[in-house]
Amino acid sequence: MTSAPARVTVLSGGIGGARFLVGLLAHLRQVNPDGQGGTLTAVTVIGNTGDDIWVHGVRVCPDLDTVMYTLGDGISRERGWGREGETFSAKDELAAYGVEPTWFGLGDKDLATHLIRTQSLQSGFTLTEVTAALCDRWQPGVTLLPMSNERAETHVVVETEDEGRRAIHFQEWWIRYRASLPAQGFVMVGIDEAKPAPGVLEAIHDTDLVILPPSNPVVSIGAILQVPGIAEAIRTTKAPVVGLSPIVGDAPVRGMADACLTALNIETTATAVALHYGARSNGGLIDAWLVDTQDALSVAVIEESGIRTRAIPLMMTDVDATAAMAAQAIDFATS
Amino acid sequence: MTSAPARVTVLSGGIGGARFLVGLLAHLRQVNPDGQGGTLTAVTVIGNTGDDIWVHGVRVCPDLDTVMYTLGDGISRERGWGREGETFSAKDELAAYGVEPTWFGLGDKDLATHLIRTQSLQSGFTLTEVTAALCDRWQPGVTLLPMSNERAETHVVVETEDEGRRAIHFQEWWIRYRASLPAQGFVMVGIDEAKPAPGVLEAIHDTDLVILPPSNPVVSIGAILQVPGIAEAIRTTKAPVVGLSPIVGDAPVRGMADACLTALNIETTATAVALHYGARSNGGLIDAWLVDTQDALSVAVIEESGIRTRAIPLMMTDVDATAAMAAQAIDFATS
Repeated sequence: MTSAPARVTVLSGGIGGARFLVGLLAHLRQVNPDGQGGTLTAVTVIGNTGDDIWVHGVRVCPDLDTVMYTLGDGISRERGWGREGETFSAKDELAAYGVEPTWFGLGDKDLATHLIRTQSLQSGFTLTEVTAALCDRWQPGVTLLPMSNERAETHVVVETEDEGRRAIHFQEWWIRYRASLPAQGFVMVGIDEAKPAPGVLEAIHDTDLVILPPSNPVVSIGAILQVPGIAEAIRTTKAPVVGLSPIVGDAPVRGMADACLTALNIETTATAVALHYGARSNGGLIDAWLVDTQDALSVAVIEESGIRTRAIPLMMTDVDATAAMAAQAIDFATS
Repeated sequence: MTSAPARVTVLSGGIGGARFLVGLLAHLRQVNPDGQGGTLTAVTVIGNTGDDIWVHGVRVCPDLDTVMYTLGDGISRERGWGREGETFSAKDELAAYGVEPTWFGLGDKDLATHLIRTQSLQSGFTLTEVTAALCDRWQPGVTLLPMSNERAETHVVVETEDEGRRAIHFQEWWIRYRASLPAQGFVMVGIDEAKPAPGVLEAIHDTDLVILPPSNPVVSIGAILQVPGIAEAIRTTKAPVVGLSPIVGDAPVRGMADACLTALNIETTATAVALHYGARSNGGLIDAWLVDTQDALSVAVIEESGIRTRAIPLMMTDVDATAAMAAQAIDFATS
């Protein structure tokens, strides 16, 4: 077992990234304990805010909240998003009023988070500051940073017979249509004006390891990488960059990453995603890549592109399995 | 029984006014039915917005909502405010975050109303328009108008040893302190800039009867009367103005009107409230006044001031009793 790095930076979407972080922290608490139940390793998470949405007048940050609730032990274990023991009274009432959207799963407990966030944003605080304040309660054990304090929301270009070609909010595509409308492309509205949030570039440059967990490579990791300056920081950091494939055996581990990849003409394979990220030695984003053991045959092909690749079990079936993945990622990237 | 008036205008606070309106509508449906379960009499309610409050970033209109929910059969029968079958998940969560105020009873169903209102106001709609839109769902059977579209919130001047003399929001005084901190006075912040909402002056001038129901004469009816122009309209309308005493046997029928009256050096009696309103024939606001039978001895004193007065049962114990009160008010004022 290698010694644990002092600093780790993780780019994260929602459920996949959050589950990986649970395993990462479990591993770090074991190999680098702080003596108080935590870890001495400083973990910084750069969270995707591309799927943020203003709904019913409140600002919802699904990925930041999934990370925060998951690490703070407030997540619904059954759903993987939103709060345990949630009620949906407000949502039902909004529907009774006939107010759209009715398809967004706005829980009552969750709403408290959004109310605080919205009021704080409207009072002039940044999303970085608000996120830190919310984390005061949840104590996620990581420093959770939004990728940007500017609004830059992912929209999906779709085409239907009755409504023609149009761009809809990512959440509408993802939740209402369950990614079943073929996506012709993704557009992040506002991304040109977005800047990395304070601390984001520093977290990439001044770290011992950057990890791309098995989050959606297009709308989660991909959204973060679109913030001007972030991809360049990853290309140029002195720290190694390791990714874990979100695709196992030609299917997403969870979620609907295949529908996103198809829109970009990327095959739903561990190989195609690795080549999409590309080797840092060749102007790309990663040095090392982990594929699942059932994709072991792809190792040679990926390595040809200049990405060191290893096949290990990549199913996050429980915390121990996920901790083992995190241990392997650290070991492989820093060895 | 006199024939029913074609138009009635009622100034209303929350619970007391709302209960009176239930009885008024029951009476009018009986004596002036429209053949579809309603009444041909057009009832306009001018609702108090002086106890409105922005809380956790949303605009709450307690009195408008109490009228709307009560007449729309969505009110909690047990509490008299808020929604039947309410949950308080968001409220509990806000408290768990340590965000003040924690004393405001923000229900989850109720929150849906506030979210719609807040988003609509922030989109540029007026409170009049928003209230009409909300009433589309509740079908209260009246035209519900806010007294003003400008923000003018009642504050209470209190003095405590540890915090000295200060003005706190009416809701804080009413709910958090249950009106137990002696009020030195009431100040409506913003009232000088407030105008009657569209339709309010017309509803007072172009009507057959104005009713002051047994709402709080200081912070409900009194707040409405402070909007520049409204008291003058009541003084000058050609319609008769009748009031029902909120004080029965030297105590408020419900609520804490005594604490409000004391602050204005007004006795908690049916007589004192009548004289506070004053006779229209003498520059005051009412022509006629109903007191409870147990206050029958006060009739002569009140009549001396120029206010026609009658003693009838004034306890709103059920809809029938309240309908009888409304019938008497109409009969007495228009005879």
